Amino acid sequence: AIIVYRLPWTWKCSKLLMKFIHAGLNTIAMILAIVSMVAVFEYHNARSIPNMYSLHSWIGLTAVIFYSLQLFLGFAVFLLPFAPIPLRAALMPIHVYSGLLIFVTAIASALTGITEKLLFSLKSPAYSESPPEAIFVNCLGLLIVIFGALILWMASRPQWKRPPEENAKVQRPNGGAPEGMEAESTMTDCSNADKSDVGFNSEAARKRNLKLDEAGQRSTM
Amino acid sequence: AIIVYRLPWTWKCSKLLMKFIHAGLNTIAMILAIVSMVAVFEYHNARSIPNMYSLHSWIGLTAVIFYSLQLFLGFAVFLLPFAPIPLRAALMPIHVYSGLLIFVTAIASALTGITEKLLFSLKSPAYSESPPEAIFVNCLGLLIVIFGALILWMASRPQWKRPPEENAKVQRPNGGAPEGMEAESTMTDCSNADKSDVGFNSEAARKRNLKLDEAGQRSTM
Repeated sequence: AIIVYRLPWTWKCSKLLMKFIHAGLNTIAMILAIVSMVAVFEYHNARSIPNMYSLHSWIGLTAVIFYSLQLFLGFAVFLLPFAPIPLRAALMPIHVYSGLLIFVTAIASALTGITEKLLFSLKSPAYSESPPEAIFVNCLGLLIVIFGALILWMASRPQWKRPPEENAKVQRPNGGAPEGMEAESTMTDCSNADKSDVGFNSEAARKRNLKLDEAGQRSTM
Repeated sequence: AIIVYRLPWTWKCSKLLMKFIHAGLNTIAMILAIVSMVAVFEYHNARSIPNMYSLHSWIGLTAVIFYSLQLFLGFAVFLLPFAPIPLRAALMPIHVYSGLLIFVTAIASALTGITEKLLFSLKSPAYSESPPEAIFVNCLGLLIVIFGALILWMASRPQWKRPPEENAKVQRPNGGAPEGMEAESTMTDCSNADKSDVGFNSEAARKRNLKLDEAGQRSTM
């Protein structure tokens, strides 16, 4: 879900479709997270194991709480057409940052969970004797770290951002559409938004784009 | 060390001094990491505990190996005056990304280490009975996560970057210095670097700056 806006095949989609893919994948992940949380609590209760005592559980619950907040706010601000553009622009860097932070926190939670599980389950031979299961699951842990590193790399490369629609049209030598139209065309999925500043000229649009670029906001607003 | 370039008091320092602070703090951290690694191995050997069997140790050793590589490459490319500007520009995004990734990996290693230690050390009462030590150390783990989140926030805000020296002068209404001079003034600490592209005009400098901005390279190159 994080890298939907970085995949070239999605650049051909409308921005609204991209948003639906992003929101849909995150909703599926949230449902899976809730199912797994319920499973954990039921397993603990069935075996009379205390709940929420470990650092793993604390980090995991923190991640799930912030993830549900992120999903709710993302839905309300970026998917529903009611939030004004300035609010979206102000919240976008926070949305991007907290999304990546929740992703990293979920990985930290997975790694502490793996450590716990190995120490609980491997008794004879013990974890410290490095049986094949221990090596296998350690490798899984390292692969999770590598996976996280790749996703963060893809999400943080500016050149992997969706190309700016306005700039592409301004820079096209034979582009004939009036500038106001271009600006408007990128706002079609925000129909209730404040359009009072639509009639800026090409230079203003370019500057605005670069400014938003600096704040890392443009590509997904 | 990560946020040296984000602290306003360092903006008054020369770029070379900033680099020395960044490199110096990282060198101290590296020395501490080596001391702690030696301590761990000696402790394990003295107590006949196997080395390097846990996920914590794998993640930790990976982080230390990449950290030493990062330190060596950073020293060779960015501190010594031999690397040409294009090489610095090409390596800077990788240096920034891998620095942040190593930081996050070190935090993941700390969290898995805390989990292990609590499970090893708390026997009566056990970790699962949530004695005060368990709560205290869980809170420490969460504080490490919050610390990491704050550092990543500071490091990733474009508006917290060191202000571009060239831009500041170009935008000053009464600025009288020739543009070539300005460009040169930001290169004083790279005296052996290729200066063939120094004589660009104000507009070119601004565009170049914005381009570097997009790649997240400008502030620390």
